[in-house]
Amino acid sequence: MHGNNRIGFELSDKGTATLQSFNPAKAETRAGKFKGATSEDIEAAMTKAKIAFDSYSQTSPEKRAQFLEAIADEILNLGDELVHAAMEESALPEGRIVGERGRTMGQLKLFASLLRDGVWVEATIDTAQPSREPLPKPDIRKMLRPIGPVVVFTASNFPLAFSTAGGDTASALASGCPVVVKAHNSHLQTNELVSDAIARAAEKTGMPDGVYSSLAGEGFELGTTLVKHPNTKAVAFTGSLDGGMALYKMAIERDEPIPVFAEMGSINPVIFLPEKLKAETNDLAKTYAGSITLGVGQFCTNPGLLIGLESRELDQFCETLAHEITTSAAATMLNEGIANSFSKNKETSLTQNGVKLISSNNVETPRNGANAAVARVSATDFLSNPNLQHEVFGPYSLIVTCRDQSQLDEVITQLSGQLTITFMGNENDLKTFEKQIHSAEKKTGRLIYNGVPTGVEVCSSMQHGGPFPAATDSRFTSVGSDAIKRFARPVSYQNAPQFLLPDELKNENPNGIWRSVDGIWTNNGV
Amino acid sequence: MHGNNRIGFELSDKGTATLQSFNPAKAETRAGKFKGATSEDIEAAMTKAKIAFDSYSQTSPEKRAQFLEAIADEILNLGDELVHAAMEESALPEGRIVGERGRTMGQLKLFASLLRDGVWVEATIDTAQPSREPLPKPDIRKMLRPIGPVVVFTASNFPLAFSTAGGDTASALASGCPVVVKAHNSHLQTNELVSDAIARAAEKTGMPDGVYSSLAGEGFELGTTLVKHPNTKAVAFTGSLDGGMALYKMAIERDEPIPVFAEMGSINPVIFLPEKLKAETNDLAKTYAGSITLGVGQFCTNPGLLIGLESRELDQFCETLAHEITTSAAATMLNEGIANSFSKNKETSLTQNGVKLISSNNVETPRNGANAAVARVSATDFLSNPNLQHEVFGPYSLIVTCRDQSQLDEVITQLSGQLTITFMGNENDLKTFEKQIHSAEKKTGRLIYNGVPTGVEVCSSMQHGGPFPAATDSRFTSVGSDAIKRFARPVSYQNAPQFLLPDELKNENPNGIWRSVDGIWTNNGV
Repeated sequence: MHGNNRIGFELSDKGTATLQSFNPAKAETRAGKFKGATSEDIEAAMTKAKIAFDSYSQTSPEKRAQFLEAIADEILNLGDELVHAAMEESALPEGRIVGERGRTMGQLKLFASLLRDGVWVEATIDTAQPSREPLPKPDIRKMLRPIGPVVVFTASNFPLAFSTAGGDTASALASGCPVVVKAHNSHLQTNELVSDAIARAAEKTGMPDGVYSSLAGEGFELGTTLVKHPNTKAVAFTGSLDGGMALYKMAIERDEPIPVFAEMGSINPVIFLPEKLKAETNDLAKTYAGSITLGVGQFCTNPGLLIGLESRELDQFCETLAHEITTSAAATMLNEGIANSFSKNKETSLTQNGVKLISSNNVETPRNGANAAVARVSATDFLSNPNLQHEVFGPYSLIVTCRDQSQLDEVITQLSGQLTITFMGNENDLKTFEKQIHSAEKKTGRLIYNGVPTGVEVCSSMQHGGPFPAATDSRFTSVGSDAIKRFARPVSYQNAPQFLLPDELKNENPNGIWRSVDGIWTNNGV
Repeated sequence: MHGNNRIGFELSDKGTATLQSFNPAKAETRAGKFKGATSEDIEAAMTKAKIAFDSYSQTSPEKRAQFLEAIADEILNLGDELVHAAMEESALPEGRIVGERGRTMGQLKLFASLLRDGVWVEATIDTAQPSREPLPKPDIRKMLRPIGPVVVFTASNFPLAFSTAGGDTASALASGCPVVVKAHNSHLQTNELVSDAIARAAEKTGMPDGVYSSLAGEGFELGTTLVKHPNTKAVAFTGSLDGGMALYKMAIERDEPIPVFAEMGSINPVIFLPEKLKAETNDLAKTYAGSITLGVGQFCTNPGLLIGLESRELDQFCETLAHEITTSAAATMLNEGIANSFSKNKETSLTQNGVKLISSNNVETPRNGANAAVARVSATDFLSNPNLQHEVFGPYSLIVTCRDQSQLDEVITQLSGQLTITFMGNENDLKTFEKQIHSAEKKTGRLIYNGVPTGVEVCSSMQHGGPFPAATDSRFTSVGSDAIKRFARPVSYQNAPQFLLPDELKNENPNGIWRSVDGIWTNNGV
């Protein structure tokens, strides 16, 4: 452990060593001090990023793919040291961390394969028509090109997969953008290990100095400086609504506004339709007790709102769910701040008008731990109180009882933007409630049928994002291969000579990628 | 002429008739009064738009294609009445208006064909793998879905092609979004004729009431109310930096921030490289005199900045250009405000340190007309004065003389975001200046070789937009078929039954569109 900030291939020991990470399970500060980045460190990292962009943006997709694969290899090479650091700093169990490491490597390899496939650049060629009347048509070719240096804010709840070399970093590097990571203060050692791995991979694969930097520091001040820096061209963030909105507003107020892709969580409503609920009352309750408490409820897609129609089955569902929650294990949360917020936000929700606690697990709470709970409220009370749509990050869920289908309609219409909305229903149910399903589609990035929202598949069809306030920009995803599109913009080349065109747009199509040529999809040359 | 506001299929005569358009060529107010929309009119239009979205977002691509084609037919049916109204209200000549009508109809038909082609929705299917270890993989399918009601601010400089039924309206309607147009006060009669045509087309093709509305009023107040209305989900605008930024900031400050796609113009730098300039000195000067004065310089892509290296050829180029400008025809501008701004902004530019007027056409200026002018400044003075990067909308261009290649490098590095940057050079030139070309690419949406920036081809490879301040969002275009992507967002469907999927994602692929299925591009079924 060196405790220094990483400025490209160099380490800076300029800062004062004041930062330490915390072991939430033991409730104690960990050994090892990390230096907070100085103004010169920040300036040096951003200057290197800008210079690196000149050459990095011109690297071939194959070269960038090799870089990403090398990062995955170097992460695996860190072996148990990484696994133990991440476990200590997050209180997550070994199986989860090993799984998350696999996901992190999988994401890097997914983007490598996306680069080789090449279709993501949306190469579009309209060839010249010199004899067109009244005016000749020029040759115009368009593709996505990288946007510039990206600042990545790492997330607390995925110390690997949404952190230093997580989805944001992987997709930004894939697109051709240098990355400057703001290390999460909860995972300083994990960050150092992974940052060093990225730097080794960059050197081994011949990437420019400055393609990757990592800075630590007091969150708000460091974050503000990075977002406001003129060399920064985009920001990625996963975390709270308050945190995301603070960055978003800062970025908009710059002389040159820049995009902030903030995924700010949601309450992920689940609608239990009557026939399905009747047929599988207890099974549904057990399945959802598992989803609510999975990973101590610390997922962006945790089901925080369960909605059903007034009925004997719903009462029975609540009873079984209450029982399951009461007997669920208590566990340590990611850090002290999150544990305290969970207690506070749960209490706030429970004291709202009409909200009744129906179950809380009664095991002894570990230090920095969470007691899972579920509560119930009438749709009438829910509809009159926007506070009940605030996310309670952790194992807590509110059950909303609707009088009838038309009140369910009202509840859906009044929902704010969500990452996911789920319908549990058999075919008959889904036909009866088709109007409500279409209405729900307008509020969400992902519409799930007969599953749980926890579990976000990393693939090309995944949309992890949604209408505000789930995310700042519903047109992009932070999970899956399309995450790369956040960091690219279309550039048209008019009458360009072949040697000045990127390979993706050359006549001979050297990479054999799929392109639109004069309106026809083809992987042939022109 | 009825002078009423259009609320879907109904006309409202609630407002007070206080608005009149102007004939800039005759410098007189035109006959005919138009009513300013009342608060109730605005509320009625926005409510209808929200309700219409429910059904309009579920229409088939074929139905929407028929609607767009019907709009084109109805516009043509307006015949000479439309052509004369647009000519009187804009001072543009008949040939231009007839051409622009053709372009407007062409755009509508382009989007109709895009809808039938279907690839624009980016349909992506990952089929289930129930036996995957450690966890089964669900079926996930994703496509672009419409974002909701769009408010369109019409542009002054294209009374048809960027106005009531222009590119913004056509692309928003194509995506499945209802449109509410804020009529341009310069083109109130043109707007009424076209709005009535759109409504007729909507009724004939069975579209819902509220799919289209048009409101007139004092610009700022009406615009503010529309942008802040909770039913508005996106805004499109073409015009000045000040106007665009005002809307952008308003939209960001809403409880639910929404995207504003503002194309705010640019100075479209043109770099004349030495060998080409030497070989074609006078021809280049003549070509560019034509581009600077085309349409009285009233194009977003007007070349406002010409850059060359200190040389005898550059002096000769300036001399010929000066001669051409001096003898160019003076002409009426689009409206009084634009004519006054042109005079003022030109004077401001001419009084900056080191700027020397080298030519101004000396014919008598018509009322509301423009005298074309070109001026010259050293790169040293240019680099020290950011004011010289402000757009002067109209026939004015500033020639920047660089000492050498490295100063040219500095000038390019210091450019703000542009719609276009053009290089005029032979093969040798382009090889010598390759670094500067790559540097320029970072500053622009479109990179042009050996052509003029005026003339924006409407096609799938066009990027009309660029880094800020050319546009508020460099990742989207306002011209060409990709303009539709501004008004759509990805939605994932997980484990959805076939009957609840949009046709684009159904197994049998009823429309035969190209899709990604398990990573393979195909137009077959699953």
